[in-house]
Amino acid sequence: MLHGLWRYVVPLLFALWFANSGAADLIVEKKTHVLSRFTTEGGRTLRDVRIGYETYGTLNAAKDNVVFIPHMFLGSSHAAGKYRAEDAEPGYWDGIIGPGKAIDTNRYFVVSADTIANTNARDPNVVTTGPLSLNPATGKAYGPAFPLLALRDSVRAHKALLDSLGVRTLHAVAGWSMGALQAYEWAASYPDAVARIIAVGGAAQSTGATIGWTNAWAQALTLDPKWKGGEYEPGYEPEAGLSAAIQGQLMAVAHHTWIDAAFGRRWADAAKDPRIDPASRYLWETQQAAIGKYFAGIVDANSYVLAIRAIQNFTVGGAETLEAGLAKVRAPTLVIGVPTDLLVAESALKRDVDVLQRRGVRARYVVLEGAMGHLEGRYGIVRLADTIRAFLDE
Amino acid sequence: MLHGLWRYVVPLLFALWFANSGAADLIVEKKTHVLSRFTTEGGRTLRDVRIGYETYGTLNAAKDNVVFIPHMFLGSSHAAGKYRAEDAEPGYWDGIIGPGKAIDTNRYFVVSADTIANTNARDPNVVTTGPLSLNPATGKAYGPAFPLLALRDSVRAHKALLDSLGVRTLHAVAGWSMGALQAYEWAASYPDAVARIIAVGGAAQSTGATIGWTNAWAQALTLDPKWKGGEYEPGYEPEAGLSAAIQGQLMAVAHHTWIDAAFGRRWADAAKDPRIDPASRYLWETQQAAIGKYFAGIVDANSYVLAIRAIQNFTVGGAETLEAGLAKVRAPTLVIGVPTDLLVAESALKRDVDVLQRRGVRARYVVLEGAMGHLEGRYGIVRLADTIRAFLDE
Repeated sequence: MLHGLWRYVVPLLFALWFANSGAADLIVEKKTHVLSRFTTEGGRTLRDVRIGYETYGTLNAAKDNVVFIPHMFLGSSHAAGKYRAEDAEPGYWDGIIGPGKAIDTNRYFVVSADTIANTNARDPNVVTTGPLSLNPATGKAYGPAFPLLALRDSVRAHKALLDSLGVRTLHAVAGWSMGALQAYEWAASYPDAVARIIAVGGAAQSTGATIGWTNAWAQALTLDPKWKGGEYEPGYEPEAGLSAAIQGQLMAVAHHTWIDAAFGRRWADAAKDPRIDPASRYLWETQQAAIGKYFAGIVDANSYVLAIRAIQNFTVGGAETLEAGLAKVRAPTLVIGVPTDLLVAESALKRDVDVLQRRGVRARYVVLEGAMGHLEGRYGIVRLADTIRAFLDE
Repeated sequence: MLHGLWRYVVPLLFALWFANSGAADLIVEKKTHVLSRFTTEGGRTLRDVRIGYETYGTLNAAKDNVVFIPHMFLGSSHAAGKYRAEDAEPGYWDGIIGPGKAIDTNRYFVVSADTIANTNARDPNVVTTGPLSLNPATGKAYGPAFPLLALRDSVRAHKALLDSLGVRTLHAVAGWSMGALQAYEWAASYPDAVARIIAVGGAAQSTGATIGWTNAWAQALTLDPKWKGGEYEPGYEPEAGLSAAIQGQLMAVAHHTWIDAAFGRRWADAAKDPRIDPASRYLWETQQAAIGKYFAGIVDANSYVLAIRAIQNFTVGGAETLEAGLAKVRAPTLVIGVPTDLLVAESALKRDVDVLQRRGVRARYVVLEGAMGHLEGRYGIVRLADTIRAFLDE
């Protein structure tokens, strides 16, 4: 009965990873904007910072129909559409971004952009300046010498990109996970420019638990002898360490209810009983390995650690306290949370809404039910399409 | 305000790790029983298997007042009492084992024993035969050649130990986590000998999620260059890998609600802002490291991986299905579960009770509330002392 199942489920999970509900036919292209000079929050000046971005829909004459989509950890600006019609899967939020969809590209000009020091720096569709880029001071890659970043750095860089397009106001900023953190940061940094935000599965301040999860992943990565304190040569990435880190990450982002239902105790190979042969594996273990290997092939390890630091250090507005940071947010805010989310607890999201409401900001908390945990913000978000559409119309 | 806090909280957490509520004054000693010949479930024969054990209370003349306590992963037979009056902390379940406590040593003769291939093989208070033991066939340590074990192997070895003490029936078997798995196995393997079982935070069959968590820990451990496929020399344990594995493990056993409340975003050193210096850490990260380092100093890596395999492979009774395994259980069963437990979901525990009840077995599910997650089965169990006492009296 189980024979050969793994051949089906591995591709199925990969399909799920990229899957979307829409009949997507947007064809998109990656564009590049260059900031000739950029000074980080920490005071380091970078030259020729390259920012990859994608746009969906058309900018209107008033330039006031823009929705910006900051992306998640291990993500990129490929939020919707396909690069080529034959691509297996469209961008990650294609279920809610496109013609007639919740974020309707017949009405909105949707823009997404790659973060500075994007984790997926080895993905050919990502354009970024980070640890793998040449440090003009040395003529070699920055490596671990690339400066510590705040999420606000990417927000400021993306603001400069939008300025270059003549866009001065945003109808909305909407993001999932690390993208939600940036949505909050947009509202705090540019209160006059941001009309509303949607924060899915991300809090205005990272919790101690988020610090702990991400630390555990970084601990695994940095054990790889190829890590060398970040001083690996480009082309010799610590891929085993990245894979192990991401396998741990999966346990935080995919709730156990879903893992039990979708994989349970099935063996990877029906002919190989793990109870007899210590080398035989369970199906979910081979899924963890396959997903780990996939990301290990596109992620840069120094960039992975930098992004973890940025997430750990995040309090909206660069403030000392959550309350002080949220005091800078005036935009109406739609917060979407998942009860099974282990990485970003609902309690933190509800607290954000409470703080905003007490300050008189129009903020609302909506539950996205589902067994997948944190990943529902990606795979289940289409179930809240009507909620998102209505919020954009308010 | 935060200055110097880490000096208090690290010891506090360590105290918590070993803490118990009772005014424990039981003085206990580790004893050793040797099985001259033991054949594993997998058909491998071992010679001179050493089993460490502890006893609390007095065996009555009828030898029918025995409660056996199988232990958890990363645990040992030190369930209660102290070795010396000056020990900082007593055994892990001292809150419920002792004179006048829930498992009253004035009435019961309580026995606990170290598993075969105990993970904490380098703890001087653990007596075990495992990968660090001499393989008589080679005159060197077994290392990764030590046979794959089932939890039933330890149960059978512990049965032989009790036989040697003249004990033929058990008033109860009670365990937490991996100890709960063994309690189920006792009931299935020796239905005529076990009068009742208490299973705290452990299911009669390991779930896919448990497989995934444990796999992620093993993936981290085996990245350590000192791991060498398990062929490290005794004395050259992959301690960094063990520490990283255990830091990941902490995120599964300590619920995020507790981490946020107890540690939140506090810095390890109030003078070192992690937002400025990438080498500065948050307090919970240093706690993870301290706990990881503690266990890395007593755990043997091959034994760690063997225990993970035993947990992953567990279905009660060595059966093919949960239902077939639970069909062997006739003992009245008290199942205790924690709603915040990420490692062992309540749903699995409730399913066990349902299956038993449908077969007419007197089984009951009791909730242990608390924010600590899986660890409540250790630190919060004293809150169910009355429930446990009453169940033992039924």
